[in-house]
Amino acid sequence: MISRRRTRQVRVGGLKVGGGAPVSIQSMTKTKTSDVARTIREINVLEEAGCEIVRVAVRDASDAESIKKIKHRIRIPLVADIHFHHRLALKAIENGADKIRINPGNISKPDELSRIVKAAKARRIPIRIGLNSGSLPREGRESTVHSSQSTRFVSYALRYIKTFEEMDFRDIIISLKASDVVSTVEAYRGLAKACDYPFHLGVTASGLSKGGTIKSAIGIGALLLDGIGDTIRVSLTSSSLEEVSAARHILSALGLRKFGPEIIACPTCGRCGVNLVDIVKEFEARVTPKDPAVKVAIMGCEVNGPGEARDARIGIAAGKGCGVIFRNGKILRKVREKDFVKELLKELRR
Amino acid sequence: MISRRRTRQVRVGGLKVGGGAPVSIQSMTKTKTSDVARTIREINVLEEAGCEIVRVAVRDASDAESIKKIKHRIRIPLVADIHFHHRLALKAIENGADKIRINPGNISKPDELSRIVKAAKARRIPIRIGLNSGSLPREGRESTVHSSQSTRFVSYALRYIKTFEEMDFRDIIISLKASDVVSTVEAYRGLAKACDYPFHLGVTASGLSKGGTIKSAIGIGALLLDGIGDTIRVSLTSSSLEEVSAARHILSALGLRKFGPEIIACPTCGRCGVNLVDIVKEFEARVTPKDPAVKVAIMGCEVNGPGEARDARIGIAAGKGCGVIFRNGKILRKVREKDFVKELLKELRR
Repeated sequence: MISRRRTRQVRVGGLKVGGGAPVSIQSMTKTKTSDVARTIREINVLEEAGCEIVRVAVRDASDAESIKKIKHRIRIPLVADIHFHHRLALKAIENGADKIRINPGNISKPDELSRIVKAAKARRIPIRIGLNSGSLPREGRESTVHSSQSTRFVSYALRYIKTFEEMDFRDIIISLKASDVVSTVEAYRGLAKACDYPFHLGVTASGLSKGGTIKSAIGIGALLLDGIGDTIRVSLTSSSLEEVSAARHILSALGLRKFGPEIIACPTCGRCGVNLVDIVKEFEARVTPKDPAVKVAIMGCEVNGPGEARDARIGIAAGKGCGVIFRNGKILRKVREKDFVKELLKELRR
Repeated sequence: MISRRRTRQVRVGGLKVGGGAPVSIQSMTKTKTSDVARTIREINVLEEAGCEIVRVAVRDASDAESIKKIKHRIRIPLVADIHFHHRLALKAIENGADKIRINPGNISKPDELSRIVKAAKARRIPIRIGLNSGSLPREGRESTVHSSQSTRFVSYALRYIKTFEEMDFRDIIISLKASDVVSTVEAYRGLAKACDYPFHLGVTASGLSKGGTIKSAIGIGALLLDGIGDTIRVSLTSSSLEEVSAARHILSALGLRKFGPEIIACPTCGRCGVNLVDIVKEFEARVTPKDPAVKVAIMGCEVNGPGEARDARIGIAAGKGCGVIFRNGKILRKVREKDFVKELLKELRR
């Protein structure tokens, strides 16, 4: 079991982030936000897939204006992502954003920041201080003989936090996305020791589906294992749906959330006497998030099969063309290969 | 930079494992080992993809016999995976296996173990003590009020190590695969403090391609971030080629190995003014492992683009239908969207 870092709790619309709330899943639309119809469609598909907070890019007045219309037709909390222009932040807040994300690396004038903070306070919405190593002042981005990139990154974050606290604003979520996985993990670990604000985790610019998923799983996963992280976003140069699916896999791999049955299956080798890959694929395709969130083991042979299958609520350990089905550590019966999926589903739904 | 755990060095065929050697990539064939032609074909395809050590299941005398023939027609070190039958281990060693993997959880008779160890010593080949939580004695598998599963797992590993050391055998690699990611990471971390043998990392029974890759990336990645791990295997209920590709992505994401250019790309959002996904896909398809192993950033907008692209050797930050190309932090020129890939390749290969 992972022991989670104690953080302050912040509310994003109806959702709690931090302070013991379940780690929530975020994504960001790929549409132009002022294309209201397409943006709403993307958000609703994302919600269906398990997205719990959605972010939209607010690049101009027309994007900021669209927030009002979008808010009326979606159910999950909406975050406005703003860079450079503090007026867009003010407009987004006015139009009902449930949270805004700014990067003080590019909205840094004290009076501009102060107007944003005042507006957020009046509406009681949180602000994410979303730092990216790429947009820090030059001296913050580079390692020196005296300190690593991540140490300097943390000290910038603390400086911005102090600015917000001086305005008596503590409705803060923080993200620290460095340019690589190692520095990102180091930066979050460093900041975790220095404050109790909830963290939004992510690895920036991670890349295409496969490589990006792996980078994100390592970075986000290593931090979650430490108990660090309150809401996560997997960034992929791919569809936002894939981001949500990867986020769910990360959280369920760590036992932090459950989304239907967890399937464990062996990699198959020369010992396997059934067509395991197809069996697992078919089983995975037929279970739904509404099925009981228990562990189901589908193992190709007698080596690790019985032991690992016994740890699962339900399991099959295959032999040659057949297998034994277990439940809570007890062998129920012998089943034929062609009935594996049917029998597992029957036991699962019993 | 990751500071790696100091471990003893072991040789597997011509390859060094531990003691500062690069973290190596393993996979395991999915064929029946006695199907020599198919096994050799799978191994040679795996080698081409970057596999550096390959394991085959030795289930019966005919598998053990095949090792001789396979060894003659492959170039990478061959590991024989043996369960239950110590005679198969002896046969595999006799037939030229470069390493054997046994699980003392199922070959536990002292005289059987001792015969295997003597044979390995005579041939100067290492043994992997490959523990799986599923095949531990019952009392080792369960948490009690006094100790977690992983603590008991570590104490079993130390007991087996002691047995080998008492036979004056130290050519050991260890793996500790528990039934879930959290316990696996805990177990390896625990054992890392208690011995200096090199570790083979993996998450067992991880599942189909996507979920399995994510579980493995978290578990293996978190340990590698700690400096733990000397050789890795991603287990997937999928093709062995996918295992090798995922392993490469894990190592390169952490900067531990380099396999051609590392592409970083933004996830795209409403700010993106070019068709970034297709550009990145095309670029990724056209680079080869022989291209310089530098960071190439392909960013969709001006927000994080220039900063993060500047950290890369070469980069593009896109605007609307065009972009600027950077090299070592200096803007080279403006390029049109349709020329992005061509211009990046030109700069990369210059």
